[in-house]
Amino acid sequence: MTMLEQRKQRLAAFIRQVWDGGDADAADSYVADTYTIRHDPGDPWEGQALDRAGFKDRVRRSRAAFPDQRFDIQGLFADGDGVVMTWLWNGTHRGDLPGFPATDRMIRMSGATVYTFDEDDRLTGHWQITDRLGVFQQLQRNR
Amino acid sequence: MTMLEQRKQRLAAFIRQVWDGGDADAADSYVADTYTIRHDPGDPWEGQALDRAGFKDRVRRSRAAFPDQRFDIQGLFADGDGVVMTWLWNGTHRGDLPGFPATDRMIRMSGATVYTFDEDDRLTGHWQITDRLGVFQQLQRNR
Repeated sequence: MTMLEQRKQRLAAFIRQVWDGGDADAADSYVADTYTIRHDPGDPWEGQALDRAGFKDRVRRSRAAFPDQRFDIQGLFADGDGVVMTWLWNGTHRGDLPGFPATDRMIRMSGATVYTFDEDDRLTGHWQITDRLGVFQQLQRNR
Repeated sequence: MTMLEQRKQRLAAFIRQVWDGGDADAADSYVADTYTIRHDPGDPWEGQALDRAGFKDRVRRSRAAFPDQRFDIQGLFADGDGVVMTWLWNGTHRGDLPGFPATDRMIRMSGATVYTFDEDDRLTGHWQITDRLGVFQQLQRNR
């Protein structure tokens, strides 16, 4: 398997274990000492360079509102130091969000994320777009 | 130059000529007989398979509201039959949109698009996410 194919598998394992599974401490095996969120409109951490503890804190806080969240990976595209992941996502809205107390509804979202890697195949950051208008429309429906 | 690097250059030329330049007829040199919009939340043509005439019609209608629009390509990632483009975009809102008469404001947007190619290097479709909430917020401000 080529190095780029290995990176795709590594990224898929990271998503499954850390973001789907909620094992924030597993980030130690995947994430570089600094993880930079270069572009991510609507994300509270946009523009920040997180250390390992900050990264885990972001995972835990982001997952709190949707503890059963799951990514359904649509495509993986590896080129240079980047792997792009296109994805669908769903989660039950069990925790409060700013302006939106828990609704217990199944929320769906889609997005695309460019992850970057260092020479040791550790994640150094991302550039991301999510369809946050679609999420707002689902949260606001029949309030 | 490798085939995948050539595809990236070809995609950048397509964006410049057709989407930035407004030369819809130039699509003849870039687009396959059928162009499928597989995923594109908020796009009126989402889910459709367009013939060449339908593709040009989409270009002309999409550009009408923002005739000076420009894409600023942030990254290109080629793998398999896909090239992913991450982008910033801006355009002056000179034509009416549903619910939003022309405001003459400069509107900014970002997005990520997976373009797919056939064996003759013609575009067969896309899978796209745009930050449409960001656009709505700009259009609604101080109405």
